[in-house]
Amino acid sequence: MPMNNPDAALDEMDRAIKGLKAVGVQFFTNVNGAPLDLPELKPLFEKMAGYDLPIWIHPARGANFPDYLTEEKSKYEIWFVFGWPYETSVVMARLVFGGYFDQFPNLKIITHHMGGMVPYFEGRVGTSWAQLGTRTSDEDYTGILKRLKKPHLEYFKSFYADTALFGASSGTKCGLEFFGVDHVLFASDCPFDPEKGPGYIRETIKIIDALPIPDEERHKIYEGNARRLLKL
Amino acid sequence: MPMNNPDAALDEMDRAIKGLKAVGVQFFTNVNGAPLDLPELKPLFEKMAGYDLPIWIHPARGANFPDYLTEEKSKYEIWFVFGWPYETSVVMARLVFGGYFDQFPNLKIITHHMGGMVPYFEGRVGTSWAQLGTRTSDEDYTGILKRLKKPHLEYFKSFYADTALFGASSGTKCGLEFFGVDHVLFASDCPFDPEKGPGYIRETIKIIDALPIPDEERHKIYEGNARRLLKL
Repeated sequence: MPMNNPDAALDEMDRAIKGLKAVGVQFFTNVNGAPLDLPELKPLFEKMAGYDLPIWIHPARGANFPDYLTEEKSKYEIWFVFGWPYETSVVMARLVFGGYFDQFPNLKIITHHMGGMVPYFEGRVGTSWAQLGTRTSDEDYTGILKRLKKPHLEYFKSFYADTALFGASSGTKCGLEFFGVDHVLFASDCPFDPEKGPGYIRETIKIIDALPIPDEERHKIYEGNARRLLKL
Repeated sequence: MPMNNPDAALDEMDRAIKGLKAVGVQFFTNVNGAPLDLPELKPLFEKMAGYDLPIWIHPARGANFPDYLTEEKSKYEIWFVFGWPYETSVVMARLVFGGYFDQFPNLKIITHHMGGMVPYFEGRVGTSWAQLGTRTSDEDYTGILKRLKKPHLEYFKSFYADTALFGASSGTKCGLEFFGVDHVLFASDCPFDPEKGPGYIRETIKIIDALPIPDEERHKIYEGNARRLLKL
């Protein structure tokens, strides 16, 4: 979506979904460097919740986002390897604590790279944020958890996640355990593997085929969840 | 260590280890916002490799490190929950691609929070960085992998990791699978749980006791690896 122009994005969503039968839209994790929870972008989330169709969130950070305060850019493509899943995780937190899922209960968001950092750091997400506000003195965060209708970890589990972990078997198990089998969708990130095409598809299928789950659950990951979520 | 004064840090390391029988030292992941791979800090790594004793790397980012280019600070304590493991991961990459482990083969580094993002994103670390240089045009990274003596993923596996994942069972399994049972050390992060003490200890022990591994491997995690690494 052309997020730098919210009105145009709203029109484009209608044209794509009503006119062209699109079954979802993609937002990048930042808009020219700005966050997705800007007030002027909220109608975009509202519209997709109204359609009851998913938003794919795709990371977008570049080398111009430095990893240290004293530096101007990110070295060694760290912005890509770690920065992208980091930025996915940041969006998830901003939407959760911004109350988006209470305001738009139908909101469905598919995160790339198996939910960013959230599943591996489930314990941190759960227990550190259970103390939200205790590490902040210049702003009062202590009311945020109370204002949310559900425990904060439940919102993080309400995201969907794709399987694009590039051949990481134990990460895939960890992500699946966190989101549950109804919230994980097949994706490979083809053609960005070193073989420029078949590598990620083959390795991701190998991992999913080897998961110790019943075939009906495997079928959900491969296509069932997508059919349900995209109304296919 | 007082990293803002490298000479003082070198003296303090000698005093602590020779004089006070310290069995390792702690570096934060940045030095007043600057990276750990500054040339003037390299003698600190060299010295610890000489002692053949470990460096604990502890994340240190604050709310003043923003999550978006348009913002001045990190919201909702994201700097803490996600920013800390991110910064651990960044240090790991900077040391690996800076050739620290080829230069100092004895270097032993213990990472907090089970190795930051590296185990969950093992596939990304492996296959994305196998293409290091292809996403960068203003600097030539294409010689880095060739200059390293081993495949880059092996260096990431050569780090040590602690079990402070705050009650995340599947993350613990994922981290253990990545680093291997000889490179994982018990830690709980007591007293920073919501109960202010016993919570993380109890939950971390529960997870390690339930790992499907032989008791001799469990013993390594609880104390054997620490005894070996710290020469106790």
